[in-house]
Amino acid sequence: MPQEGLAVGIVRAYWTAMQTNDFYRAAECLAEDFVLDWPQSNERIRGRANFAALNSEYPANGPWRFTVHTIVGNDDEAVSDVSVTDGVQSARAITFSQVRAGLIVRQTEFWPEPYAAPANRAHLVESIS
Amino acid sequence: MPQEGLAVGIVRAYWTAMQTNDFYRAAECLAEDFVLDWPQSNERIRGRANFAALNSEYPANGPWRFTVHTIVGNDDEAVSDVSVTDGVQSARAITFSQVRAGLIVRQTEFWPEPYAAPANRAHLVESIS
Repeated sequence: MPQEGLAVGIVRAYWTAMQTNDFYRAAECLAEDFVLDWPQSNERIRGRANFAALNSEYPANGPWRFTVHTIVGNDDEAVSDVSVTDGVQSARAITFSQVRAGLIVRQTEFWPEPYAAPANRAHLVESIS
Repeated sequence: MPQEGLAVGIVRAYWTAMQTNDFYRAAECLAEDFVLDWPQSNERIRGRANFAALNSEYPANGPWRFTVHTIVGNDDEAVSDVSVTDGVQSARAITFSQVRAGLIVRQTEFWPEPYAAPANRAHLVESIS
């Protein structure tokens, strides 16, 4: 079995820290000058302090639970596929992370939403579940 | 500079083949028993023949152009972030690929859509562009 890349381990530790819902603690996985981009809404969060504040202020119905489906990467970069729920709201986050010196320096994150399967390709697909 | 992982190179070749818009040619990057999941619509495409047919039949306003933003991975797995447009329709595909023996055996693909930035976090973000 190949050794897990360094960035994969750091991103795994980041999601473990997020699971505590202490987002100031999770922010300790991030560099001071960390930058997170959300291309879908054209938003950039600059700095670990803003990251922790934004996650702490986000309206929630209870503690956030994070389920890590997969993390793919190497020593420098990793991409995670994670489901997030507070028991009422549910979302899926696909996060590209760059790591330097043991800290996440940059993330680009996507939030894909469910959509109805188009009828015109039903003859070529099956249901996943 | 670290050597590019094998799976990263194969996924790069896959997108280069997609760029030809000959989806039967692109399907040669896939294993015969290839499986592609689209979790957002709960659709599974099984086999390279269905993959090529589905892409060939998809309603388009002109040739599809693919812009590869990044590919992250190692010898066995890679994740790509790619913009797709036919000049009228535009989309972004985030694709997790597993590679065995030089062929893509499995993909899980997400299609994140733009959304409006929430006002309640405007004090913590800036625009990307």
